[in-house]
Amino acid sequence: MTRDLATPWRERFSLNQATVPRWNAVEVVEASARAGLRWVGLWRDPVAEVGLPAVRKALEHTGLAVSSLCRGGWFGASTPAERRRRLEDNFRAVDEAAALDAETLVLVVGPPVGESLSDARRRVADAVAQTAAYAKTAGVRLSIEPLHPTYCADRSVIVSLVQALSLARANEGVGVMLDSYHLWWDPELPAGVEASAEHIHGLQLADWLSPPPDHLNGRGMPGDGCIDIAGFVALGEAAGYRGPIEVEVFNPTVWARDPQEVLDQALDGLQRHVAVVLESREVRRP
Amino acid sequence: MTRDLATPWRERFSLNQATVPRWNAVEVVEASARAGLRWVGLWRDPVAEVGLPAVRKALEHTGLAVSSLCRGGWFGASTPAERRRRLEDNFRAVDEAAALDAETLVLVVGPPVGESLSDARRRVADAVAQTAAYAKTAGVRLSIEPLHPTYCADRSVIVSLVQALSLARANEGVGVMLDSYHLWWDPELPAGVEASAEHIHGLQLADWLSPPPDHLNGRGMPGDGCIDIAGFVALGEAAGYRGPIEVEVFNPTVWARDPQEVLDQALDGLQRHVAVVLESREVRRP
Repeated sequence: MTRDLATPWRERFSLNQATVPRWNAVEVVEASARAGLRWVGLWRDPVAEVGLPAVRKALEHTGLAVSSLCRGGWFGASTPAERRRRLEDNFRAVDEAAALDAETLVLVVGPPVGESLSDARRRVADAVAQTAAYAKTAGVRLSIEPLHPTYCADRSVIVSLVQALSLARANEGVGVMLDSYHLWWDPELPAGVEASAEHIHGLQLADWLSPPPDHLNGRGMPGDGCIDIAGFVALGEAAGYRGPIEVEVFNPTVWARDPQEVLDQALDGLQRHVAVVLESREVRRP
Repeated sequence: MTRDLATPWRERFSLNQATVPRWNAVEVVEASARAGLRWVGLWRDPVAEVGLPAVRKALEHTGLAVSSLCRGGWFGASTPAERRRRLEDNFRAVDEAAALDAETLVLVVGPPVGESLSDARRRVADAVAQTAAYAKTAGVRLSIEPLHPTYCADRSVIVSLVQALSLARANEGVGVMLDSYHLWWDPELPAGVEASAEHIHGLQLADWLSPPPDHLNGRGMPGDGCIDIAGFVALGEAAGYRGPIEVEVFNPTVWARDPQEVLDQALDGLQRHVAVVLESREVRRP
């Protein structure tokens, strides 16, 4: 694949497969390669569906690299045995990330489970430390993904970049995943991204539709909502991030469409909204 | 009305009329008095419906005091003329709060209007300062209500207690309204409430239902959701707050019920969840 010097933004772009569930993991790799991309964002379940070896083969064949593997985390458990099972599942996720040579394994830490928020946050810190110790031996970088506070009860007790960065700083090999949808509202965002610097292990884009059409699956394609997408990417750039930029959109209206159209729209959105931010930057190659 | 020494929590309780829209403003005052309460939370539109003099008369007759008047704010405007109209509406809200001798006038600052989030926040800071100057001459205390970040696009660019406190500190006579529904997720909440101290002008309770049944009107009665209501009230107590505690629930299922039942449930919830927190405290009388 020849490098197109006129479009460095394309070298940064990664389609997260959660955006195009009608493609299986091999199909999303192949479609991304056809589009001239260098990265692809994968999820564990669809990778398992076609089999990890088949995905590895497609990656080798196309030369694509995995910008992130989603996801580990979900540490909550009511019993010690269940807690152990959750931890072991995270170790498996680390192994899968290593096998795919993923840039990072994303952790969504899970909700409180019959406990106070502060207890849940302490428990999560312990579980992250244990997962980080295992990931270190496997050479896998973890990313804590702070979710929007609207998910504090059902998805993640980590709901701000400051929290996620604190976990990253406490554990070697742990960083943060910056997702515009989850973080755009935060008055501390510019300072938080600047402070994150070398801890930024990934950047994801989705837009906030207003009013949100759905609690879980109401995200917009970048440019369709009210987030300053260019400004968000620019914060990452200013903090020194030069890695892949994923588009990850959970929305049944998007999922129902022809995935090639969705990929084209994502590329078009990135070109219109963030190309200018990236054009003067050097590109870190996978 | 005799004081029941065994139930100081009842002296702190205030039913916000947004919870019982089937009662008009006079009816909610009278029902609150019958329940042995000392406070009531009012909204401008329903007060206007029965007429402010009628509400004043009911307050005088029952001896009830107004814990808060909702609301001013919504400063966003596309033209200078519209901005001026919004400001004048806030001045009228101040006058109404003064006429009702309300403990505080609540400000919900409004969303961005064709501008960046940071520009919107600067604009809001200016508008709060102008409203505060007017409120000072009228002897009315303002409260900035930080909303949950899920409302950043459509209701309020002020989405954290730290932001609201910063506005309070910058303007004489301005404080914060602590609402459990809006603030419970915040990892900085304990430190923020402690720092707010004398700036706490009010405290409101509603619960977070998971998953939220609705973006705007999906709140739960205190005790029906996942928020540690007692812990929230205890933070306010520890910071020295001794004022009224409102129950304010936006939920069509609650609205459809017999308002007397809703009032009874709110009282019962408060007794079960927060009475123990309040019982050893002295009570500030209206």
